[in-house]
Formats: sequence, C-alpha cells, structure tokens
Amino acid sequence: MDWEKIVREISTKTASKIILLVLDGLGGLPIQGETELEAAHTPNLDRLAAKSVCGLADPVFMGITPGSGPAHLSLFGYNPLKYLLGRGILEALGSGVEVAKNDLVARGNFATLRDNLIIDRRAGRIPTSENEKLCQRLNSSLKSVEGIEITLFPGKEHRFVVKFSGEGLSDALSDADSQKDNKPRVPAQALSKEAAKTAQIVNDFMDEVIDLLKDSPRANAVLLRGFSKHPSLPSMGELYKLKPAAIANYPMYKGLARLVGMDVLTAGQSLPELFAALEKNYKDYDFIYVHVKKTDSAGEDGNFKAKKEAIEESDTYIPRLLALKPEVLVVTSDHSTPSLLKSHSWHPNPFLLFSKTSLVDKVSRFTEKECSQGYLGRFQAIYAMPLMLAHAGKLKKFGA
Amino acid sequence: MDWEKIVREISTKTASKIILLVLDGLGGLPIQGETELEAAHTPNLDRLAAKSVCGLADPVFMGITPGSGPAHLSLFGYNPLKYLLGRGILEALGSGVEVAKNDLVARGNFATLRDNLIIDRRAGRIPTSENEKLCQRLNSSLKSVEGIEITLFPGKEHRFVVKFSGEGLSDALSDADSQKDNKPRVPAQALSKEAAKTAQIVNDFMDEVIDLLKDSPRANAVLLRGFSKHPSLPSMGELYKLKPAAIANYPMYKGLARLVGMDVLTAGQSLPELFAALEKNYKDYDFIYVHVKKTDSAGEDGNFKAKKEAIEESDTYIPRLLALKPEVLVVTSDHSTPSLLKSHSWHPNPFLLFSKTSLVDKVSRFTEKECSQGYLGRFQAIYAMPLMLAHAGKLKKFGA
Repeated sequence: MDWEKIVREISTKTASKIILLVLDGLGGLPIQGETELEAAHTPNLDRLAAKSVCGLADPVFMGITPGSGPAHLSLFGYNPLKYLLGRGILEALGSGVEVAKNDLVARGNFATLRDNLIIDRRAGRIPTSENEKLCQRLNSSLKSVEGIEITLFPGKEHRFVVKFSGEGLSDALSDADSQKDNKPRVPAQALSKEAAKTAQIVNDFMDEVIDLLKDSPRANAVLLRGFSKHPSLPSMGELYKLKPAAIANYPMYKGLARLVGMDVLTAGQSLPELFAALEKNYKDYDFIYVHVKKTDSAGEDGNFKAKKEAIEESDTYIPRLLALKPEVLVVTSDHSTPSLLKSHSWHPNPFLLFSKTSLVDKVSRFTEKECSQGYLGRFQAIYAMPLMLAHAGKLKKFGA
Repeated sequence: MDWEKIVREISTKTASKIILLVLDGLGGLPIQGETELEAAHTPNLDRLAAKSVCGLADPVFMGITPGSGPAHLSLFGYNPLKYLLGRGILEALGSGVEVAKNDLVARGNFATLRDNLIIDRRAGRIPTSENEKLCQRLNSSLKSVEGIEITLFPGKEHRFVVKFSGEGLSDALSDADSQKDNKPRVPAQALSKEAAKTAQIVNDFMDEVIDLLKDSPRANAVLLRGFSKHPSLPSMGELYKLKPAAIANYPMYKGLARLVGMDVLTAGQSLPELFAALEKNYKDYDFIYVHVKKTDSAGEDGNFKAKKEAIEESDTYIPRLLALKPEVLVVTSDHSTPSLLKSHSWHPNPFLLFSKTSLVDKVSRFTEKECSQGYLGRFQAIYAMPLMLAHAGKLKKFGA
C-alpha cells in the first residue's frame, strides 16, 4: 500500500487527540479453557468494548511472529517489511545513546571465557556496578583503529551497547555470539563484500577486550549481536502532522518511539506513575502512546496468573483515560505472548477503538474471540494508524 | 508481501508434521436451500471444526475464479500473481514428460477437420490406443525444423502433450484452438515480437500434421493451447526447509507438486488407496499434501448428489488422519466448484486448521457459512502456508 505517500497529502493538523494504549503481549491461548483475557475480570475494558468498534489485528501478517520492532512500527503506521530494524539500534536508542548517521551499534554481553569456550554467556549476571567499571576501563584503554572510535555504554547486569564511530562501516554482519553456553567463540562474519573491513575491526576489538580483561575472573570476553546502523524513518510529525509523545519504561520501546520522532516522556516503572505522566503531559500532545510492559513479561515467564493480574490492573486505569476525553482511544497490543508458549506468537491482537465515529458492534467483552466477531474483522495492524487518524478527523478525502 | 524473502530467513527444520487435505472444488452454492457441504452428513469434519480454528480463504483474491494452477500455488505459499503457469507445463509435468529449461510445451487435442472447419474438437474421443499410434507415427515422421525437435506424448483419448525443444523459443503465443466446433482453424499468434519465430514454427508443425494425417478419418488435425516454458520456482525445501510429498492421482496435481519440489508418491485412484499411501509414507515426510479430486469432478458435472456423497466419503477418513497425530492438520480446498455453476468459481474456500496452538473458535460445523464466523476471518489463501508453518513451530521470530 502507498500509505506513506497518501498520508503526506491527506493528513491535516487538528486539535483532536489520540491515545494509543499498548498492553504488550496481550493476546493469549487457553489454559484450562480460558485465555488470560477471558480469565481476567475487566469490567472497564468490557464496558469500553461495548461502546467501541472491535477487531483482530495481525502485527505483520498471518503466521508471522514479530519482534517488538516490527510489531510497534506496524502499529505506528510504518511498513515493518520496509523498515527492518536491528536489535542493536533499538537498544542503543532506548539507552539514550546518540547514534549518528555513520555509526554502527550492537548489543553486547559480558561473558566468561575458559579454555577457549564461552562457559557463561552472561558472566554470572555481574552487578551493574561492575559492568559500569568494566565499560569505563575499556573505554579508556581502547585505541582508535583505522580512524574508528569504539565506545561501550553499560546497561543492566551483563548487558551493554557498543558503538563504532567512523567512516565506511557496514551492518551486514552476522552475530558474534555462540548463542549457547560451552561453545567456542564465534567471530562476526561479513554478509557482503563491503562488510569485510568492518568484520575485521569488530573481531579485532573482541580480541583486544580479551587481552585487556585477562585478569577479570568472570567478565573476560564479550559477545555482540544485532549489528545495525541508524535507519532513517520519516517522522510521525512529517507523515501525520502529529505532535506525538511516548510514555514507556523500557529502553526498547523508548528507542522505537524516538525512531519515529516521538518525544519520550519521563515515567516511572509502575502503572500509577505511567498514568500520572500521561495526565501531566496530556495537554501538550495530540498523540500519546502508552506502553504497559508487565502483561508481556508475565507471558514470557509463562505466568498465566501474573498476566491475568496485569490485565486486571491495567483495566482499572481505563476510567482515567476516558476522563481525559480523547477523541480517539485505542486499546490493543503489539503482539501476543501466550503464557502457554512463554514467547511472542503469531496470533492477532485484540483491538478496540473508541470514538464518536465508531460504528459500535456487538462485542461486549474485550477478548480474542469476542473481538473476532467485531465490525473491524481481521486486519493487518498497519491499518491501525489510518483508522486512528480517520476517527480523529485528521485525514482529508483521498482523490476528488 | 515479501513472504518469500522472509520465510527463507525464519523457517526452521523441526520434527513436526503437517497434513494438508485438499478436497478439490469443495465450496458450493445452495440448491434447495443447502450447499453440498451443508447437505452432507459430516460428523467427523464437524467434530474436527469444533476443535479447530476456521475461516474462509480466497484462492487469489475476492472475485477471481482460479484455475487449478494458481489455486494450488497459493495454498503452497507461492504468489499466484507472480508465478504464472501455462496449462501446458502442468499437463506435461503431470504426464511425466521431462521439460528442460528451453523447452516449450503445450496441451494438444486430436481433432476432426472437414472442409476447412474443425467439426469435432475431440476427434470423436478416439480410443487412447489410437492416440498412442498417431503420436508414434508423427514422432517418427516429423522433421527437425531450424534445429527444433518436436515430440508428442499421448494422453487419454484425444489428448496429448507436445514438446518443442531447442533454442530461442517463446511462450508468448495465443492458443491455436477454435474453442468451439464448426469453426475454422485458428493459428497460434505471437503475443510479443520475440515470439514471431516460434509462432511460425508452431503453425508450420500444425500444417505438417494435417499433411501427415490426411488419410486418418477422424483424427486429422491438432489443436494446441496453453503454450508454456518451464517456470523456475524455488522449492518448498529451499523456502520452508520442508521435506514435502504429494499424494494425488491426476496429472495436473502431480505436476504442480513436482513444480514446487514435492516428491510425488504413487497412489491409486480411490480414496482407500489414497489414504493407505498417506499412512505408508507418513513417517518419511514432514509435509504431506493429499488431493481428493472427486468433489470437484462431481461439481463440474453439476451433480449435487455425487458431490455431497464425495464429501461424505472423505469425511469418513478424518479419524485416520487424526490417528497419525500430525502437529498441524488443515482441511480446505483449492477453489470452489458449485454444482449449481458446473464450473470453478470465485467463492472462498472453507478452511479448518487443527493444532495445539489454534485459538479454537465457535465454529461447530464445517460449512461455508459457519467458517465465515471463524477466528481466522476471511483471508487470502497465500497465508495458509505461513499459518501452517507457524502452528507447526517451524517459523522463528521476525525482527528483534
């Protein structure tokens, strides 16, 4: 679809406001006959569903299990098959690392190397403070090689982001990660001719780290994956004439939001803090994306009960969203994370759109099966943005 | 969609197995208030539907009546708008004719020519033995023209396949077939500049046949249609990392299966033989496509009762499929063949997917209308393959 081209022409600035509430990993599969949504007590979501138009949204297309990147891009109206994002860039942006056009970034782990085997890919989950010291030490010791500057940015426990700055770098590299413990080290491999020099620089860096950290008992090697350069996406301001903001806790989602030009607002870790931040900043934006992570985390842990409770807790905030009187309120997810599978899945997202112009269907409970009977039917999530903009009165007629 | 590119990256080899049961021409239209599926007694399919996820699949897209080629390609996950197959190539492959990269093939009929009119396009449906003698005679008499070898392969009754072997042949030719009796002969016409020489060769061949068969009372001319060269499709092994097999009786379906790299297994003409072949070979493959033809044949004949009975007979084999315990069982069709229309139609295919990861919907009868209420909704059949692979756990996550 030529959505991007069309929307530049037909989007228009209005005073109306859109709230997009993403309950990460919301969709599930039945355990003892019910999905997490079916088992949860959600009087507010159900009441809202009864006044909304509902459907099921496939994040990418049927059968595809998306990572958080493609799943979110799709929701924001960006074709996830066109804009392929490396995990490195998302992690970097989410950690607040500034990435320039020529920079190459990757996600890193400190790991334990013994007798030429990576015996612990997480270096015993070293404390964050130790990680910070290691990064500092490496940053002051590493020499610029062939004009390439290398900088490490500590994350939590064993995780870090590494940035290679300089000319001529390529992100066509395979992961330099054994993926499993007790395997030999794996070098980065060039996936194109142009990437040969970059592979050499990356592998030399990894060797140098081993040399520099040879006295460190646990964290004496690094693994790198998700090599990526800065992708250039048109901003939501440019495409949709929106002034958008994101309220999210986790680096990944903050990074994604920055990538499409959202302001990332400071918010705490808990739901009360998240929704307080929304209320505080609501007046300054016309599109606010609120990201709730705990539904997904519980699903990933296979904890049906915790996921059900996270849904129930989220449900209690619906009245506060409605009290803000947004012209459009959408409640959906980026992808499903059934507790049964303990992972992302390909199942579509329950989707609810509340606005004055919604043709209200018969759906009266916000569940997977009920949404499948909704007026929106089953659709690809990339249509969520056209729908939100349309219901907010922000799209002019296409064609004469 | 970039499905082909994506699936090469995310497909993964597993031990799980998929059975795809295609009841050819399954969907119908009501006669006396019920479709063939609605009129049929199908306790096993209904019980299975009640434990499955259901929907309606459009073979190509809404409104398009597909031939068997596009309809099957779509089911196998190949874009039917990208891979255009001539009927000739399918017939040739299905008849076991080896087609090399440069070869041009077409379907042929022996016909009766009198007073410059084709008075019988099927030459009175001559016996197969007579056809075989005619092909033998022509093969020994035809001279190689401009380095092009011409070979006829007899089929049943009046049908044959002709193969032109040599350099520089094009398949951009119109059918050399009057389509109706009592019409003058129609030459093949070049549909592009490059095809002019090929048209000449083909038309010279057809003239030569008339000369060679001038003493034959009925079969004294040939009609040719569906000119096609060998298309190169990536194999299912290459794309999906599957080891696929086809159990089918008819040349067309065997040919299609070979085209996408399936092993074509020997099976008899009856349903007992078909399912016995499945059971015998099940352990050696991870994807088995079973093709039942009689539902379609009955529909083409406009025989509502025979189609209903073919559905009922197929239904009795469902328990034997389930006894094999495949991780994924799909029952659907390639296209609809309503008895009312006596032909293929554009109506979508009832679709049922049984697996542990299916979100079971409320559909409890396997009919067109019930399937329209299923959780899969209405979708394009090209998504059947992503769904089957996903439910079989054969697709990794897309993107980070």
